[in-house]
Amino acid sequence: MSEAGIDVLVVSDPANMNYLTGYDGWSFYVPQCVVIAVDEDTPLWIGRGMDSAGARLTTFLSDDNIIGYPDHYVQSLERHPFNFVGDVIVARGWAKKRIGVEMDAYYFTARAYAELQKTLGDATFVNGDLLVNWIRLVKSDSEIALMRQAGAIAGRVMHTALDNLHPGVRECDAVAAVYQAQMSGTADFGGDYPSIVPMMPTGEKTAAPHLTWTDAPYENEQMVNLELAGCRHRYHCPIARTAYLGDNPPDKLVELAEHTVEGLNRTLEGIRPGMRAEEVELIWRNHIAKVGLEKESRIGYAVGLNYPPDWGEHTASLRPGDSTILAPNMTFHMILGMWMDDYGFECSESFRVSETGCETFADVPRKLFVKK
Amino acid sequence: MSEAGIDVLVVSDPANMNYLTGYDGWSFYVPQCVVIAVDEDTPLWIGRGMDSAGARLTTFLSDDNIIGYPDHYVQSLERHPFNFVGDVIVARGWAKKRIGVEMDAYYFTARAYAELQKTLGDATFVNGDLLVNWIRLVKSDSEIALMRQAGAIAGRVMHTALDNLHPGVRECDAVAAVYQAQMSGTADFGGDYPSIVPMMPTGEKTAAPHLTWTDAPYENEQMVNLELAGCRHRYHCPIARTAYLGDNPPDKLVELAEHTVEGLNRTLEGIRPGMRAEEVELIWRNHIAKVGLEKESRIGYAVGLNYPPDWGEHTASLRPGDSTILAPNMTFHMILGMWMDDYGFECSESFRVSETGCETFADVPRKLFVKK
Repeated sequence: MSEAGIDVLVVSDPANMNYLTGYDGWSFYVPQCVVIAVDEDTPLWIGRGMDSAGARLTTFLSDDNIIGYPDHYVQSLERHPFNFVGDVIVARGWAKKRIGVEMDAYYFTARAYAELQKTLGDATFVNGDLLVNWIRLVKSDSEIALMRQAGAIAGRVMHTALDNLHPGVRECDAVAAVYQAQMSGTADFGGDYPSIVPMMPTGEKTAAPHLTWTDAPYENEQMVNLELAGCRHRYHCPIARTAYLGDNPPDKLVELAEHTVEGLNRTLEGIRPGMRAEEVELIWRNHIAKVGLEKESRIGYAVGLNYPPDWGEHTASLRPGDSTILAPNMTFHMILGMWMDDYGFECSESFRVSETGCETFADVPRKLFVKK
Repeated sequence: MSEAGIDVLVVSDPANMNYLTGYDGWSFYVPQCVVIAVDEDTPLWIGRGMDSAGARLTTFLSDDNIIGYPDHYVQSLERHPFNFVGDVIVARGWAKKRIGVEMDAYYFTARAYAELQKTLGDATFVNGDLLVNWIRLVKSDSEIALMRQAGAIAGRVMHTALDNLHPGVRECDAVAAVYQAQMSGTADFGGDYPSIVPMMPTGEKTAAPHLTWTDAPYENEQMVNLELAGCRHRYHCPIARTAYLGDNPPDKLVELAEHTVEGLNRTLEGIRPGMRAEEVELIWRNHIAKVGLEKESRIGYAVGLNYPPDWGEHTASLRPGDSTILAPNMTFHMILGMWMDDYGFECSESFRVSETGCETFADVPRKLFVKK
């Protein structure tokens, strides 16, 4: 914060709020934030009055640092919760400070910022976007333990999806089984809701990556892309595979799968702490160039703690130009999707950078799954 | 738009984008919008290039009106997708127009607005918040048909939850069964993901309304609050009930349930088109006053089409001071939650205002469910 010229940071990204205080609730549909000041020992949680109880149950904060706003601030035309946040900042004597705000956090709306500026007319505003996210990039051992649990769930989720894919099964019923597995988790620990819904497109929808399911049945002799995740206490392990329903996957698909899986294996094997993120991408790029292929988009991104609508952390990416130096306990989702005109294949792993290489979290064979 | 002084409206609320064009995809984690101009026949869809395929599959728009931005706009420090949106607006000759933006829509961030202002330096900006939402308040018959289907799913979802609640069952496993029912829907039509996760708190968490589940088992002689929903093509039917696990619900809880259910019944029976929203609340208020109770917060809100993180429409509420005149095919979720010091009861119905009264969408008995 000092380096960024910020005295008081208003954190409204729910994942950052959780990271800083432990707060965990589905309350981000109303304005809320955590406020950190450089000259205070502990943060403030400010949210809707009825959610104060949740803050007391899930955070380490004392009651004095949990401040609820009255319900007449909710969806009102006359007043906005960020006026209340501004009033709290004034009451703490920070009215003329340099206030950091997360300008591009999902739930920090244009109006939230305008109202905060209105209430804090004497303050200087500084963009504090991603300041906490970059700290989240390197996980603690406790966080890694949760991601391993998310990985165990992710493996079961992917196997459940593969077991439920048959021609004639409605997409919604296969998705229902996936959700069931995501929440049940394992016998030892339960699952949490992933930040992105299961994506299991088939047919023409494989070309439209973010469409959700229908109640039409899966058909024979078709590809299905599976982009799924396991989640544990808001920590994610995403995983992607491709299945083919039918006896005769096209040769070109089988060949593409082999090249892609080999590239994924080699890239994972090549990871070492101290490398730049872009160097990881280069291993992959060099591999597929040998078989005459190329891929334009990034091949991975930082992953971990998050809330809807995204499990990515919006910091380091495995792509040309990203000079982030890999360090132990950084965690990424590497997803290799190769899309041709009328077919495609994808395969992914979530991993941590280890002291000597990398450790993947889920245990699912890397291959094209042919469901005869 | 003319009345609000808006020439060009930039709509970034995913539900409003769907309402205006049909667009439906889990792509709202990147900036996207629909742009409507008063002097154009059809809207423009502007989103990430890879989501253009989804726009072609789900909207009625011609290819000319579907504009994708290149992937180097995604999570970039140098450029923002709303610069691209601004460039499109300039290219259409609207650089000096009055531009409406949804200032408090969840995914219209402070930075999105700042970048749009930067690119459109000659434009005048007007707050167009909730302009489309208010139109959504009265549903078409086709929308009502979807809400009836959501209601059929909601009924099955609630019965599934009640069937799976037993002392010793892990919360995550009961939630897993609920998710399974939400997505499978009925034999005739599948379910869609509701905009809010299942809420099934018990014990001390009943006082913290937005905490999600754990993997601890439900205990004997405890209340469980159930706030669930069915969803069909993004249209919701929320439903809430309270269950008691054990043989001996406290008399005070049984009594509170009777008063609350009677109040819900009377209030639903009293609804007529032409009434003001606040008059509906008054029926309830007068009823519980007779038994010495009161409730401060609103008792209902407009509901229908939506995306995470909320299924409420943020327009009309059933509360004092809301003078919205009820009209046929307006749809609401009326939720009566009565919270005492160490116990409470809630019961809700989603309904449409009909030509003569109201029609509820789900079919679940209104009572305290005692699970012996």
